[in-house]
Amino acid sequence: MKACAAVLTEFNRPLDLREIAAPVLGAGQLLVEILAAGVCGSDVHMWRGKDPRTPLPIILGHEGVGRVVDVRGPRCDVYGAPVSPGDRIIWERGVACGRCYACAVLHQPSLCENRWAYGIHRSLHDEPHLNGCYASHIILDARTDLVPLLPDDDPSLLVAASCSGATAAHTFDLVETRVGDTVVVFGPGPVGALSVAMARAAGAQNVIMIGGSLDRLALGVRAGATVALDRHATTAEQRRQVVFDLSKGRGADLVIEASGSISAAEEGLDLVRRGGALALVGFGTPVGAMSLLPFEQVVQRNVQVQGVWVSDLRHLLRAMSVLRAYANDLSGLVTRRCSLAQATEALEAVESRRALKVVLVPSGSDD
Amino acid sequence: MKACAAVLTEFNRPLDLREIAAPVLGAGQLLVEILAAGVCGSDVHMWRGKDPRTPLPIILGHEGVGRVVDVRGPRCDVYGAPVSPGDRIIWERGVACGRCYACAVLHQPSLCENRWAYGIHRSLHDEPHLNGCYASHIILDARTDLVPLLPDDDPSLLVAASCSGATAAHTFDLVETRVGDTVVVFGPGPVGALSVAMARAAGAQNVIMIGGSLDRLALGVRAGATVALDRHATTAEQRRQVVFDLSKGRGADLVIEASGSISAAEEGLDLVRRGGALALVGFGTPVGAMSLLPFEQVVQRNVQVQGVWVSDLRHLLRAMSVLRAYANDLSGLVTRRCSLAQATEALEAVESRRALKVVLVPSGSDD
Amino acid sequence: MKACAAVLTEFNRPLDLREIAAPVLGAGQLLVEILAAGVCGSDVHMWRGKDPRTPLPIILGHEGVGRVVDVRGPRCDVYGAPVSPGDRIIWERGVACGRCYACAVLHQPSLCENRWAYGIHRSLHDEPHLNGCYASHIILDARTDLVPLLPDDDPSLLVAASCSGATAAHTFDLVETRVGDTVVVFGPGPVGALSVAMARAAGAQNVIMIGGSLDRLALGVRAGATVALDRHATTAEQRRQVVFDLSKGRGADLVIEASGSISAAEEGLDLVRRGGALALVGFGTPVGAMSLLPFEQVVQRNVQVQGVWVSDLRHLLRAMSVLRAYANDLSGLVTRRCSLAQATEALEAVESRRALKVVLVPSGSDD
Amino acid sequence: MKACAAVLTEFNRPLDLREIAAPVLGAGQLLVEILAAGVCGSDVHMWRGKDPRTPLPIILGHEGVGRVVDVRGPRCDVYGAPVSPGDRIIWERGVACGRCYACAVLHQPSLCENRWAYGIHRSLHDEPHLNGCYASHIILDARTDLVPLLPDDDPSLLVAASCSGATAAHTFDLVETRVGDTVVVFGPGPVGALSVAMARAAGAQNVIMIGGSLDRLALGVRAGATVALDRHATTAEQRRQVVFDLSKGRGADLVIEASGSISAAEEGLDLVRRGGALALVGFGTPVGAMSLLPFEQVVQRNVQVQGVWVSDLRHLLRAMSVLRAYANDLSGLVTRRCSLAQATEALEAVESRRALKVVLVPSGSDD
Repeated sequence: MKACAAVLTEFNRPLDLREIAAPVLGAGQLLVEILAAGVCGSDVHMWRGKDPRTPLPIILGHEGVGRVVDVRGPRCDVYGAPVSPGDRIIWERGVACGRCYACAVLHQPSLCENRWAYGIHRSLHDEPHLNGCYASHIILDARTDLVPLLPDDDPSLLVAASCSGATAAHTFDLVETRVGDTVVVFGPGPVGALSVAMARAAGAQNVIMIGGSLDRLALGVRAGATVALDRHATTAEQRRQVVFDLSKGRGADLVIEASGSISAAEEGLDLVRRGGALALVGFGTPVGAMSLLPFEQVVQRNVQVQGVWVSDLRHLLRAMSVLRAYANDLSGLVTRRCSLAQATEALEAVESRRALKVVLVPSGSDD
Repeated sequence: MKACAAVLTEFNRPLDLREIAAPVLGAGQLLVEILAAGVCGSDVHMWRGKDPRTPLPIILGHEGVGRVVDVRGPRCDVYGAPVSPGDRIIWERGVACGRCYACAVLHQPSLCENRWAYGIHRSLHDEPHLNGCYASHIILDARTDLVPLLPDDDPSLLVAASCSGATAAHTFDLVETRVGDTVVVFGPGPVGALSVAMARAAGAQNVIMIGGSLDRLALGVRAGATVALDRHATTAEQRRQVVFDLSKGRGADLVIEASGSISAAEEGLDLVRRGGALALVGFGTPVGAMSLLPFEQVVQRNVQVQGVWVSDLRHLLRAMSVLRAYANDLSGLVTRRCSLAQATEALEAVESRRALKVVLVPSGSDD
Repeated sequence: MKACAAVLTEFNRPLDLREIAAPVLGAGQLLVEILAAGVCGSDVHMWRGKDPRTPLPIILGHEGVGRVVDVRGPRCDVYGAPVSPGDRIIWERGVACGRCYACAVLHQPSLCENRWAYGIHRSLHDEPHLNGCYASHIILDARTDLVPLLPDDDPSLLVAASCSGATAAHTFDLVETRVGDTVVVFGPGPVGALSVAMARAAGAQNVIMIGGSLDRLALGVRAGATVALDRHATTAEQRRQVVFDLSKGRGADLVIEASGSISAAEEGLDLVRRGGALALVGFGTPVGAMSLLPFEQVVQRNVQVQGVWVSDLRHLLRAMSVLRAYANDLSGLVTRRCSLAQATEALEAVESRRALKVVLVPSGSDD
Repeated sequence: MKACAAVLTEFNRPLDLREIAAPVLGAGQLLVEILAAGVCGSDVHMWRGKDPRTPLPIILGHEGVGRVVDVRGPRCDVYGAPVSPGDRIIWERGVACGRCYACAVLHQPSLCENRWAYGIHRSLHDEPHLNGCYASHIILDARTDLVPLLPDDDPSLLVAASCSGATAAHTFDLVETRVGDTVVVFGPGPVGALSVAMARAAGAQNVIMIGGSLDRLALGVRAGATVALDRHATTAEQRRQVVFDLSKGRGADLVIEASGSISAAEEGLDLVRRGGALALVGFGTPVGAMSLLPFEQVVQRNVQVQGVWVSDLRHLLRAMSVLRAYANDLSGLVTRRCSLAQATEALEAVESRRALKVVLVPSGSDD
C-alpha cells in the first residue's frame, strides 16, 4: 500500500508531498487512515527550526484521529474492547516506557524519561516510517493507548483533544479547582478556549478570558467565558478591577497563562487570590526571564506557580469529555480545514494567527 | 490574679517586664500558665519594627505550651475530651472565623480573611489583654483549638510545633511527596531542621541539608539529613552534582527554601526534577525580586513553585507527631532556655543566630 | 410581623396551619421569606413518627430557598459579599459547631457531633421558633452558611440542591470517579435522578438507571441516563448482562443504591467492577440486614462499600452547579407545587410516590 | 547452571527438592540468587489445594529478596540506576500488562486483568521455569519492577515487604488516615503486625491490636501497638469499651480486619466511628457470609467498608520504608529461618501458627 505524507525536509521550506510505501506491520501495530490531523503551534516551531528535538526529514503532526485499516495481532482499546478495521479511534500521542521512575512509581507517564510522541521525535527514516499525522496514514506502535470514538464524534473537532485539549486538562489535574471558582485565562487560542471550557465543566462561576482578538474572544464566550476582556481596549488596572469585583475582592482562584507572554504571566500573578494558583501553559519556546517577588507575591499569598508540560492518557480522556459535552459551543474552534497539499499554508495560517485551529483532512472528508 | 509579661512598647527597645491583672474570664475562655514560649524569627521582625501588623504595646509570642489554670464554662480539646485545670495543652496559634470563603468553602483556615494570631495581631490594650506568650499567663479565646499534651511531652521541645513545625508541615500538605524521594532543604534553622524531620517521616531516601553553620548542619543530620553540605565549603555546582548523583540523575523531588535567601531559591529551582516542587517557606519579609525562566525552568520541567504561609490545626498536629517520633534526635533544637526577664536577650540571640531555638520558661521550669 | 407555618403537632395527623409572631432578630440572624420548600422523603418519616429525633411540635422542612427580609448586623454570603434584604438565597441546612474533631480536624462538618438541621432538630418551642421551611418565613442562625442565587435560578428547582442534591453530591465526594466511567443508579427518585446528573457531569460514559416506574425512568433519561431499565420488565441477570456488556466485561465503576432496598443493594454489589464502589445512599430508616460475602464480593474484588449520610456546604455548591448546568433537563423533577395549606397532601403524595419532587410555595409564587 | 527448587507436584504432599537447569536468559531477564523467600499464608492455601489458580507442578514463593547473578541486556531499577551482577534487590511480585484499563487509565496495576505473580500463576513448565522463590534462583521477567536494597537491609526481614507488608500498605492507600487517629487491628499475624507499624508511621495516637496469642500480641506492641487485647481474656463489650474510651467516645477511625474471621469483621464494624473505615484484608479464602445492617451500621454512620486485595509497586516501597524505619522493633517478626529442604516443615509451621513469619534461606545465609 502507498501512503501519502507532507514531509518536512528542510526548516522554513514548504513541506514536500511524498508517496511512501507502508511497511508490513509489526506485532501489535496498527495501520490507521488519518481522518483529521491538527496543526499545533509547536508544529510551527518545528517547521521554523526552533525546536531542537526535530529530526529531519520528518512527517509532522502529533494530533490525529483516524480509522483503523489493519491490525497485526489482537489489540484492545483502553476500555478493553478489541480494535478492528473500520473502527474510528483517537490515541495518546505520547508513548511512555512503563518502567522508569515516572511511569512505575509516580504514575505520571507525561514525565517518562523515554517518552516519545508521534510527529515530533521520530524521523521518516525511523521504522515504521509513517510516524506523523500529516499523512494519509499513520502506523501506531504496539504500546500506544487507543481510545474509541463515539458515532456522533466529529474527528476535526475531537482531534483538538489530542494535544491542546489534553494539555489544558493537565492544568486542571495539577491545580485544584472547586465549584464557584473564578478562573482567568490569558490567550484565546486553542489551549485557552479549551481551558475555558474545562473551567466551565468544573463548575467555575466566573471565567474571564483576556485576549487581543475580538474573534477569538467571541469564541471564548461561546466556550463558556462569562467575561471577555480585550487587552487593547482595557488597562491592566481595569482588568484587575474586573477580576476582584467578580470575585468579591478575593482575586482569581486560578489564572491560566495560555498566551506565552511574560507580561501576561506577570499580570496574572497579581490576579491570583491568596492560596490560589498561576498555571503556566502557554510557553512553548524560550522567551526570557520573568521577575517575581518571592515574599510579597508567592510566600505571603501562599500561591502556587505551576508549569504545565504535555499530558497523558487521562488528560486526553478528560479533554474528549469536555469537547463532547460542549461540541456545539466549541465547533467554531476549527476555523479552517485543509488538504495535505495545503499543509504549508496551514502552518502559515497558524503562525500568522489568521486561523485559530487548522485541521488537515487528508482524504478530503473527515467522516 | 497578677500575671507577669514582657511587653514591647517601642520598636528596637528592650521589652518591658510588667505586672498585669488578669481579667475575669469570658464565656469559653481559658487562663493558661505558660510553660514554654518559643522565640520565633518573626518576633525579631516585630521587635525591629519590620512587620507592619504590629500593634503597640504588645505581648509578643505566638508559640506557647501551657497548663490550664482556669476555664470558664465547658471546653473540650479537639479530640472531644473536656479540658480542666491542671491539664497541659498546646493550641493552634491562629484563630479563624469559620464563616468566610477560606473557612467554609476551602476548609483552609490558614487563609481565613479574619484570622488573627496570639502575640501578633492583638495589643495589650485589646481585651482580654493577656494575648501573647511572653508572659506568665495567657488567656485563650473561646474559638481557639486546644490539643492535649501527653505525659512524656517536653513543653520546650513541643512548643516548636506551634509555628516552625506547623509551617514545615504545611509545606508537606501543599506538595506531594512519596516514599523514596530526594528532598533538599536550604537553611538549617528551626523550620529547616523540622522540614528535614518531616521528610524523613514521609519516607524520603535522601534528605540533603544545605547551610552555612556546621553546628546547625550537625543538628540537621541528627534530625534525619542523610547529607549535609556546608555552603562555605562547596560550590553551587558541587552541590548540584551531589543532588543529581544521589537521585540517579533525576534531581530533587522537593526543594524546600527555608533560609529566606533569593540565591538559595534560585539555586534550588535548578535542583528540582521534572514534575517536582520548589517550596518557598523561609521568606518572612520583603527581600527583593527573584528571576525565573518560565519556559526552561518551570513549564518544560512541569515544576511547581509553592509559597507556604503560616499553617492550621492539621499542620500543628502533624508537627507534634514528628516532634514526638524523633524527640531525642530533635532535642538539640532548643539551644537556650531563658526567663521572662531575659526576653530581650533571647530576641538578640535569635537575631544574631547565636542560638538556634530559644525558649522562654516564665516559671523557671517547663515541667 | 406574623408568619404562617404548617406545624406537625401529632404524628400521622394533618399539619396544623398557624400564625406565629416573628421574634426580634438576634445578632447575625436573618428573617427570610420562603420562596420554595422541598418536601423530602425524610419529612414523611418524621410525620409518620419513624424518626426518633423529631421534637413536637415542629415546623418541618429542611430544604428551602428564600428572599431575605431582614438582617440583624452585617452578614456575608460564603463568597464574602454582604447579604441584604431583597437578596434571594439558599443555605446549608445543617449547622455545625466548628470546634469538634469532625469540624476542626477532619473538616467534615457533616459528621459534626453537634450538628443540627432546620426542620429536623428544633421544635417550635425552641427560639427563634421559625426553625423550619414549611412556613412563610424562617429565621436563619448566625452560623448558617448562605449562598446567593443567580438571576436565572428557579427556586422550586434549586431547592432540590439543599438535601437530595447535596446528598447525591456527597456520594461523589466519598468515591472516586473518572471520565468514561460506567455508573449504575438504583432508584429513580430525586436523589437517584440527581445522582444521574452528577455522573453525567463527572464525564461518565454509561449511566444506567434501574427503577420500577416508567415516568421516573423517563426523567432519569432526561437527567442523563444513557440506559433505563425497568425492573418489572427485566430480570436481575438481564440487568447484569447490560452492565457488563456496556462496560466491556468490567462491571460498573460505581453503583449507587438510592432506592432504600436491600435487594437492590445486594444486586448492586455484584455489578461493581474490581476496585469499584457501591454507595449506599437510599436507606433513610432501618430495613433489616444485608448479607455479604467478605472474601468473594469485597476483598478479592477490592471493592469499597460506602455509606453516605447527609452533606455539607461543598456538596450543596456542587449540587447547585449541576442543577444549573442541566436546569432544562431536570425541570421535570418537580412534579407538583403546593400551597402551605396543602402541606399534608404534599406529604401524602411523596409517601405514595404519586409525585416525584413536591415543592411548597408558601406565597403562591416562587419568584 | 543448575538451580535447586522445592517443587509442589501434588496437593497436600511434601514439596519435592529438584535440580533444574537454568535456561539461557531472554532479553531483559535477570537470573537472581534467592537470599530470602517468605512463606506466606497463601502458600499454605496453594499447598492444600484451596487456591484454584494453582498450576502444578509449581515452585511456590511470591515473596523474595535476592542477589543478581546475571542480566541479559541493560536493566535499570525503578530509580533509574543500572542493575548489575552482585546487586541485592527486591522486586514487585506482580507483573502487570501496562495496557489495560486498570493499568493505563486507573493507574492501579494491582487490578490489572492480565496481572500474574511469581510463585502463583506460572508452573514449572512455563518458561523460563524458575518462576518461584522457593528455590536457589529465580528468573525475573523483563517487565518486573526492581528495587535496590540498601547496605543495612536484612533480606529475611525485608522480604516481608513483598506481600504481607505491601498488602498492609495497600490498606493505607485505600483509606484516609490522619495524625492522631485511633486504629484497631484484628489479627496479630504478619499483615497485622505490619499494619500496626504502618499506623504508627502514619502518626496514629492509639493503635489497638486484638488477637488470641500472647506472643504475637507482644510483637504487636513492639511494632507500635499502644494497647494489646487478648480476645480470650476480654469480652467484645470490654474491647469496645477500650476503643471508645481511648477515642474519647468517637470510635476507631480505622479498623483493619487481618485475621480472616467473620466475627472479627462484624465486631470491627461496630468499632468504627462515624465517617471511619473498616478495611477487610485478612480474608484469603471463602469463609461464608457476613451480616450487616445497611442503615444503622453503614449509611447513618457514613462508614466505608473497604476490601483490600494484593498490592502494587508503590505499596512495596511504602512497606520497605516502614520495615526500615522500625527494623529493630520488627525484627521479632521472623520467628524461624529454614533451608529449602525444610520447605514443607515451613508450610506446616505457618499453617499451625507455631511460627509467625517463616523465611526460607536457600543458601544457608541470607547475607
